[in-house]
Amino acid sequence: MPITKRMLISPSGFPELGPQEAIALRHLLGIIIKNYELAGYAPLETPLVERPDILFAKAEGEITQQVYGLRRLNLENESDDDSKDLALRFDLTVPLARYVAANRGTLQFPFRRYAIGPVFRGERPKDGRYRQFTQADIDVIGDSTLSVEHDAEMVSVIASVFTELAIGDFTVRIGHRKVLQGLLRWAGLTDEAAIKTALRAIDRVEKEGRHQIIASLASTGIEESKAVDLLDFLTQRRTTDETLSLLQSRDLDPLFNEGVGELETVVKTVRMLKVPEARFTIDLGIARGLDYYTGTVYETRFDAHPDLGSIASGGRYENLAGTFCEQSLPGVGISIGVTRLLLRLIKTGLLPATVSTVAPVLVTSAVAGNLDKYLDYAVRIRSSGTPAEVFMQERPLGKQLQHANRRGFKIAVIAFEEDFAGDTVMLRDLAKGEQVRVPLAELAAEIRKMLP
Amino acid sequence: MPITKRMLISPSGFPELGPQEAIALRHLLGIIIKNYELAGYAPLETPLVERPDILFAKAEGEITQQVYGLRRLNLENESDDDSKDLALRFDLTVPLARYVAANRGTLQFPFRRYAIGPVFRGERPKDGRYRQFTQADIDVIGDSTLSVEHDAEMVSVIASVFTELAIGDFTVRIGHRKVLQGLLRWAGLTDEAAIKTALRAIDRVEKEGRHQIIASLASTGIEESKAVDLLDFLTQRRTTDETLSLLQSRDLDPLFNEGVGELETVVKTVRMLKVPEARFTIDLGIARGLDYYTGTVYETRFDAHPDLGSIASGGRYENLAGTFCEQSLPGVGISIGVTRLLLRLIKTGLLPATVSTVAPVLVTSAVAGNLDKYLDYAVRIRSSGTPAEVFMQERPLGKQLQHANRRGFKIAVIAFEEDFAGDTVMLRDLAKGEQVRVPLAELAAEIRKMLP
Repeated sequence: MPITKRMLISPSGFPELGPQEAIALRHLLGIIIKNYELAGYAPLETPLVERPDILFAKAEGEITQQVYGLRRLNLENESDDDSKDLALRFDLTVPLARYVAANRGTLQFPFRRYAIGPVFRGERPKDGRYRQFTQADIDVIGDSTLSVEHDAEMVSVIASVFTELAIGDFTVRIGHRKVLQGLLRWAGLTDEAAIKTALRAIDRVEKEGRHQIIASLASTGIEESKAVDLLDFLTQRRTTDETLSLLQSRDLDPLFNEGVGELETVVKTVRMLKVPEARFTIDLGIARGLDYYTGTVYETRFDAHPDLGSIASGGRYENLAGTFCEQSLPGVGISIGVTRLLLRLIKTGLLPATVSTVAPVLVTSAVAGNLDKYLDYAVRIRSSGTPAEVFMQERPLGKQLQHANRRGFKIAVIAFEEDFAGDTVMLRDLAKGEQVRVPLAELAAEIRKMLP
Repeated sequence: MPITKRMLISPSGFPELGPQEAIALRHLLGIIIKNYELAGYAPLETPLVERPDILFAKAEGEITQQVYGLRRLNLENESDDDSKDLALRFDLTVPLARYVAANRGTLQFPFRRYAIGPVFRGERPKDGRYRQFTQADIDVIGDSTLSVEHDAEMVSVIASVFTELAIGDFTVRIGHRKVLQGLLRWAGLTDEAAIKTALRAIDRVEKEGRHQIIASLASTGIEESKAVDLLDFLTQRRTTDETLSLLQSRDLDPLFNEGVGELETVVKTVRMLKVPEARFTIDLGIARGLDYYTGTVYETRFDAHPDLGSIASGGRYENLAGTFCEQSLPGVGISIGVTRLLLRLIKTGLLPATVSTVAPVLVTSAVAGNLDKYLDYAVRIRSSGTPAEVFMQERPLGKQLQHANRRGFKIAVIAFEEDFAGDTVMLRDLAKGEQVRVPLAELAAEIRKMLP
């Protein structure tokens, strides 16, 4: 089949990051990894491929329809296909559960790990939905028990990531499943299925608006007046301490009271971790779609960009590896949807993706036949730790400087015969269009002075 | 289907890196990325999924049988499967070719990019053969022309990577297809197919030994005496300059002479880039299996570990994107097989993978109810840039120190009531088993002094 121009574009739902976007990605991932490691999370690299049985043991809801299996193409004999038992992971949590279950005898608990990598879902591609996207997760897993103070660590790590990213104020919203379920029982719901339906309705409150949600809640069996009260309680703006005392003043049932106590501990511990008060809040309306969360749940939003949706979400689960092993493995984790976040930050201009060079310096080659000089400059600059690219094709200097400007270099190194003779070089500040002649011996040091 | 213990192990050929190996991987990738960027290579992130037509347009040899396609599992209606046109990439070069062909109108040439990520091949898993493995490639692509000096940059970048890795001497071997083909023509081969067969035979010289290769060469139509002469010429040890003068003294045919001139330029430029003489050599016996190399070819070996095989290989190709576009896009590139390299370095003990923590410091919690103090210590240590983990479960201190030793922490922070009262903490050097009491205000600074 002849290759057409259209076929050269990456398949729909599989985003392609050119150098400009990939450089922005490296910046984002660098900050994420640094802050994950600062808190003591170590990397874990499970393969991208899992057995379908493992994936389906944990898949819930729409994901059960979205798993990609593998098949060998081009085989002469279909029965030679040894890939029928292979499928692409749809998240980083199922592989973690499998890994911990397989290695529970040798792992040291609590087990903290981060994982960053692509996951795959057979979604219909539309705005913000990708079929391949990168997640960056941290989780901490206990052996039989994991104290609730660990839940505070998620807030602290996420806050440190977005503080360092420095692209605007954000708030980590902390909710609690036990508290929310207690409120739903108070509102009259008793059976599990109705509670799940109500949780899903509440999760959509910002998307669908108040009236729609009250109708949905009413349809689960809650009296309309109680649905109104509930929604008011969930959505009213209060300080963290106001919400906590309001909750403490209620004594609904043991599970609710337990949840309130846990929430109180999480808040107290978040404060011990010196997370600024403005960077977190209690939001009891957070339900999170996934059934397996059992306690604390999180979402995170940019204050000035609620339209970006949650940029880091997660929660506490009481049994990570159920169905994989008999041991109880409680955990808590949070995930940054890196691809979606990156592309939205670029689109809204919050994260610039305008340069296509990681090197700030381009060494030009103005006089043909003198590559030895130009390469010597590059070696000097690189030895000082500054990345430098050399333009080695024979082109007029003007074209080389045009290339430097288009790519986003900061400094061009230029040298002519008189520089070779006098042991000097010229440094051109490309943004200002100004250049200075400096002694060759000071080349690297002068460049470092010019860079931020 | 119930999940058995065996099913918890990752599928055969898909290596799983626990924290110890994943930390070693991060170390290796950190050095690779740093040196790729130092030379001005920018990242490119193409998806892991490509159209099968794109992959098969470039697949050669055994790879044509090894491509994994995708299929949706669990669909109610097979005809809903929109994944038939999706397959997993088998290398990073084909996606590069597609990307450059698709974006040739807007890219600035020469286009330098690095790509690091997993590729997939339906190999039969055996020692050193993986079905998912990570490659780390650099390539520089020209628009119509790309001067041969660029070929020297590959040697320089690879030398800087393995010099910084500092796990033993290595040699980048530089060969040349035009020179080798010239020698084969001199030996009597004229048709393309016979030359290809002979190149493949020569490529196996270290695996199969002299006699086997002479027989293989003879079977392509070379007289046995000439085959012996040829093999002697290819395998004799000489200095770089001896080989160059030997080649310059021969005048076989225009293509051969062109190749000799290019090889000379590459060596001259490698020297301009200050690559130490001991770190490279001319090895005319390098053929590289892939048909598309047309000039310089590379392999790299650890001097003391030839058994590890080539740790970085590549070459020059005259037309990267042929069949994708009409424009001629010559390039040169080199690839590090990261997964294979990492696992062999760990296996042979050249790269240690013994710690399962990225944080050097564990803050213990000896006295229950004082987490505020312990978390405060962690915040102080992290603020100074040193990663620190906090042991937040209630366990006897002895158990916490055992945990610290097993994981490979360097320092444990310990504090009792008297420390809270006196604003001091104890720092325990876990390797030496010694501890000192320091003022709380100097906690972070004292830790930095103790770390290398």
